[in-house]
Amino acid sequence: MKKPIVGILMGSESDLPVMKAAADILKDMGVEYEMDICSAHRLPDITAKYAGSARQRGIEIIIAGAGMAAHLAGVVASHTTLPVIGVPLKSGALNGLDALYSTVQMPPGIPVATVAIDGAKNAAYLACSILSIKYPDIADRLALFREKTRQSLIAKSDELKQGSK
Amino acid sequence: MKKPIVGILMGSESDLPVMKAAADILKDMGVEYEMDICSAHRLPDITAKYAGSARQRGIEIIIAGAGMAAHLAGVVASHTTLPVIGVPLKSGALNGLDALYSTVQMPPGIPVATVAIDGAKNAAYLACSILSIKYPDIADRLALFREKTRQSLIAKSDELKQGSK
Amino acid sequence: MKKPIVGILMGSESDLPVMKAAADILKDMGVEYEMDICSAHRLPDITAKYAGSARQRGIEIIIAGAGMAAHLAGVVASHTTLPVIGVPLKSGALNGLDALYSTVQMPPGIPVATVAIDGAKNAAYLACSILSIKYPDIADRLALFREKTRQSLIAKSDELKQGSK
Amino acid sequence: MKKPIVGILMGSESDLPVMKAAADILKDMGVEYEMDICSAHRLPDITAKYAGSARQRGIEIIIAGAGMAAHLAGVVASHTTLPVIGVPLKSGALNGLDALYSTVQMPPGIPVATVAIDGAKNAAYLACSILSIKYPDIADRLALFREKTRQSLIAKSDELKQGSK
Amino acid sequence: MKKPIVGILMGSESDLPVMKAAADILKDMGVEYEMDICSAHRLPDITAKYAGSARQRGIEIIIAGAGMAAHLAGVVASHTTLPVIGVPLKSGALNGLDALYSTVQMPPGIPVATVAIDGAKNAAYLACSILSIKYPDIADRLALFREKTRQSLIAKSDELKQGSK
Amino acid sequence: MKKPIVGILMGSESDLPVMKAAADILKDMGVEYEMDICSAHRLPDITAKYAGSARQRGIEIIIAGAGMAAHLAGVVASHTTLPVIGVPLKSGALNGLDALYSTVQMPPGIPVATVAIDGAKNAAYLACSILSIKYPDIADRLALFREKTRQSLIAKSDELKQGSK
Amino acid sequence: MKKPIVGILMGSESDLPVMKAAADILKDMGVEYEMDICSAHRLPDITAKYAGSARQRGIEIIIAGAGMAAHLAGVVASHTTLPVIGVPLKSGALNGLDALYSTVQMPPGIPVATVAIDGAKNAAYLACSILSIKYPDIADRLALFREKTRQSLIAKSDELKQGSK
Amino acid sequence: MKKPIVGILMGSESDLPVMKAAADILKDMGVEYEMDICSAHRLPDITAKYAGSARQRGIEIIIAGAGMAAHLAGVVASHTTLPVIGVPLKSGALNGLDALYSTVQMPPGIPVATVAIDGAKNAAYLACSILSIKYPDIADRLALFREKTRQSLIAKSDELKQGSK
Repeated sequence: MKKPIVGILMGSESDLPVMKAAADILKDMGVEYEMDICSAHRLPDITAKYAGSARQRGIEIIIAGAGMAAHLAGVVASHTTLPVIGVPLKSGALNGLDALYSTVQMPPGIPVATVAIDGAKNAAYLACSILSIKYPDIADRLALFREKTRQSLIAKSDELKQGSK
Repeated sequence: MKKPIVGILMGSESDLPVMKAAADILKDMGVEYEMDICSAHRLPDITAKYAGSARQRGIEIIIAGAGMAAHLAGVVASHTTLPVIGVPLKSGALNGLDALYSTVQMPPGIPVATVAIDGAKNAAYLACSILSIKYPDIADRLALFREKTRQSLIAKSDELKQGSK
Repeated sequence: MKKPIVGILMGSESDLPVMKAAADILKDMGVEYEMDICSAHRLPDITAKYAGSARQRGIEIIIAGAGMAAHLAGVVASHTTLPVIGVPLKSGALNGLDALYSTVQMPPGIPVATVAIDGAKNAAYLACSILSIKYPDIADRLALFREKTRQSLIAKSDELKQGSK
Repeated sequence: MKKPIVGILMGSESDLPVMKAAADILKDMGVEYEMDICSAHRLPDITAKYAGSARQRGIEIIIAGAGMAAHLAGVVASHTTLPVIGVPLKSGALNGLDALYSTVQMPPGIPVATVAIDGAKNAAYLACSILSIKYPDIADRLALFREKTRQSLIAKSDELKQGSK
Repeated sequence: MKKPIVGILMGSESDLPVMKAAADILKDMGVEYEMDICSAHRLPDITAKYAGSARQRGIEIIIAGAGMAAHLAGVVASHTTLPVIGVPLKSGALNGLDALYSTVQMPPGIPVATVAIDGAKNAAYLACSILSIKYPDIADRLALFREKTRQSLIAKSDELKQGSK
Repeated sequence: MKKPIVGILMGSESDLPVMKAAADILKDMGVEYEMDICSAHRLPDITAKYAGSARQRGIEIIIAGAGMAAHLAGVVASHTTLPVIGVPLKSGALNGLDALYSTVQMPPGIPVATVAIDGAKNAAYLACSILSIKYPDIADRLALFREKTRQSLIAKSDELKQGSK
Repeated sequence: MKKPIVGILMGSESDLPVMKAAADILKDMGVEYEMDICSAHRLPDITAKYAGSARQRGIEIIIAGAGMAAHLAGVVASHTTLPVIGVPLKSGALNGLDALYSTVQMPPGIPVATVAIDGAKNAAYLACSILSIKYPDIADRLALFREKTRQSLIAKSDELKQGSK
Repeated sequence: MKKPIVGILMGSESDLPVMKAAADILKDMGVEYEMDICSAHRLPDITAKYAGSARQRGIEIIIAGAGMAAHLAGVVASHTTLPVIGVPLKSGALNGLDALYSTVQMPPGIPVATVAIDGAKNAAYLACSILSIKYPDIADRLALFREKTRQSLIAKSDELKQGSK
């Protein structure tokens, strides 16, 4: 499992601060990934080639983050039958609502699995959920992560209850 | 592969006409599925049990369709680490915008793979994409489906060009 | 009346600065309360247990604040027939509009009494109004509070009229 | 319990078809109610008098339904400390979004317990939840209603599972 | 014309910084005004009395600014047949969209002349336009103001053209 | 008072069914009016001339109804200092929301008194309110209209109360 | 000028009823055009080829109509430096708002000239405006069209004035 | 080509920081332009004259930027058959959504080529695309610009891939 199985794409380098959160989580979960800039509009042929060849290169999921009229995830999905996760990014005057609609409202036949605006973390967790149907160890790590979140919240609940005493 | 691997849930029987489209596509793609009514609000314990036991029952993906304050997909996702696909349904005064926001804007840690409002078809295609990373024959069938869509559109394009002559 | 009769729940500790306003008002009004973190998605079983046992523990109203796809109030309401007040919290790219729709657009049978986005204060006042039908002294204190608000506004009105002279 | 304890108000007789659903549920739940037309704008003094005298007349909850710039619930709440439930009605070009905002976004001090657009049914169920903290038999009837809903959904779930066999 | 003919009302003293702009313009235009705090929800009786007696006190126009579920202008209009100008104020999570809908979407019979969100200046100019049908000198001053605006813009246009040379 | 004092403009003849309601009310209120088609975009010079000469022709108020990017009221207001009432019309895909924003969000200096989407009736009542500061008989007729509305609602309230007995 | 200089593309044959209006106007204006189906998602390579070769084939403007997450115009624009006119189509639950945002909110460098939702007619008139800078006869025909529109509106204005006499 | 062929208009000098980006790009692309302030509302006659005489003065495209109820582009388009590019500006409480609707939702016959909110850069690139159908050297420069953008993104992609190693 040394070769990347998740590709994280973003439309511009300014998207890196948000999209890096997905990479960090995949690293924590032990999932190999690669990251790239791949603009639907400014690098359409490279984007098409990336998506079109992803499956035979061993990629199993593509995460695509883009803002405004966010076409990246949809364009990637049009060139592959791999699962594509779209992250609408908050940028510009409409605060990501344009990106959300441009990502989620895909016409029948070419789906994009959309997460929340700036939801790069959930894109990574969703990728893990998808991989978990094939790799049992990722299922285990997800279960562990859920349990840790749970314990951490219970600790915070206890703190709050102490504090309000 | 006789046992269902996709669970299609809906919040009420009135959602069936839309959600049935997902079932039809899965059948066409040769994917075993089961369908059920599972309200986040009116059957919370059954929903929790369904989601919590899905993985060990062999389910690999859960598709959940709900309208208005559509909590079903999120609640299902909170009880399983399987990939959960949310279908926001168009109903009520807000035409599904409430269901879209209630489904896609999940907080970090519990992702829902959201498709378009009333996008039951794409929920099924997305399920196939996800399954395709594990089952090569589903990858093949998806590729075939894409090619058929392509040929059908090319034929319509030809018709249109003839007609406008 | 030493035991808490109002439970204030929030989805994460980051919601405390807003939700504390509800606690402060209840304290001022002499209403016993308890505060807890209770995530619909990350602690679903604890949330279910909390809501399901609230009535027999003497709780009479539950206030639940959550942001984004705010399912907390709805999930709590699905496990109790007590009145549940939902506070949609302003967080994320949509400024609480997602939380508002996720909280108020509940399907028939499982109501959530929704207040304004970040409306923790009104959640507390609404709780007092509800309690006032059972506890006459709370009705008196509410009337007093209204009268004080009134006098304070009249004083400000006088100031403004002086100042503009 | 012969005297009405719930007042159902609406801004115009054209709101009756929607608001009647609240009355029907209250009747089913054995809760005495009265219904009236009480426009915030066209009968402001009568509305003020109704709200201002409601508590001493024995009313315990007021449900107010109005459309467009729906001021009725807020105006009623400004004249009473009783719990006021607002039902934003779907009418006009904005489909009730204007009524939702006009009802739910109340400033601090004067809360309105808002339900979904056209959510007259939930207004009634919420009224029952509120009354249930004082009248144990209403708590019992609510629990019964929940159980019946549950059984009815389970029956529909069984039907669906049979049908899809 | 020593007695005020325009009343400027606002729902709280926090609205003064925006609403003062209306007063400043009226002063510039030589229109006598009075300013007051008059909450639809917290001072309903005083608001009703103010509006109901305004015409006989010599007031000819009422400007009312309020935020969130902005009922002030509508409530004032329900108690007078004078022209009422509503200024939706930008406050809270919805940035004044709630106030805009609550002010402009008045039902037939009780109109509110609505200006832009935070449009206190235009409320004053609109008041002058209305007064101009009765007081020819205000018509003259408005024409003068328009001409000055025009000359100022032409000067800025010249500057811009010089600068870009 | 034989010459028209209110001008009712609309952007196209398709707006007549909605805008006619304004004319009907003015007729009932004994206010002389004229009606015309005056497109901001397709008849800009005629629109400019109409607005620019309206005051000297004896017009005292202009009501302008338009849909979509509704510029008519704003363009009229830019050519006159008379009060201009804008009626955003519901047409096209955005149901009049575009027309509302295009009409109400006027920049400082050129106000438009905006009423609800399709609010032609309130445009007429607002015109009467404005005229009432100059013509006492219109003030009387408005008061009469309010009283009749009031009596009619009280009658309907009585009917409703009888019916629900 | 026998070869088409305008290409009208649409994402599916169901868009033809709306997009045909653009063709009809171009025919009236004597502009040669071609029409084709060219889905950004289902025929990405054909779309890329069409756009990439359009200029050398003599096409001077491309009009692209698509609904929902309408990527067609943006994808076409990414493959050509010709002017691309986007027509957001009203379809699905969001009534074309998604298509509007997906079409107009293009990131810097790849512009799409966007017209109104379902604005196929204006797409054609805009194409004529663009062509008019190169082909003087099209400028003449546009001027003529404007004059005819003007006369027709004046005639309707006269009718309206007669009718209201 | 010494005389300006593109006119850049803005509604107020406060729009200059955004609109200057269009000028900078035109300068880079070797396109002569002029810049001016031209308010639809405060300088309607000058705006009309500017637009009406633009074609004979040699102007080939007009770019118009305005905020709020942004009528500038539409008013300019009503006085010329030249292509008019509208830039909705982000200002006021609605963040430019009002300006977007006021600019793009033009009625049939008077089109405005609308770009993104604050999309002054794309307005310039769109102007170049339009000019490119007449001036081959602009087509060349646009192609060069696209290639440079492409190389720059590829370089950034390489950097990102190095960095993530």
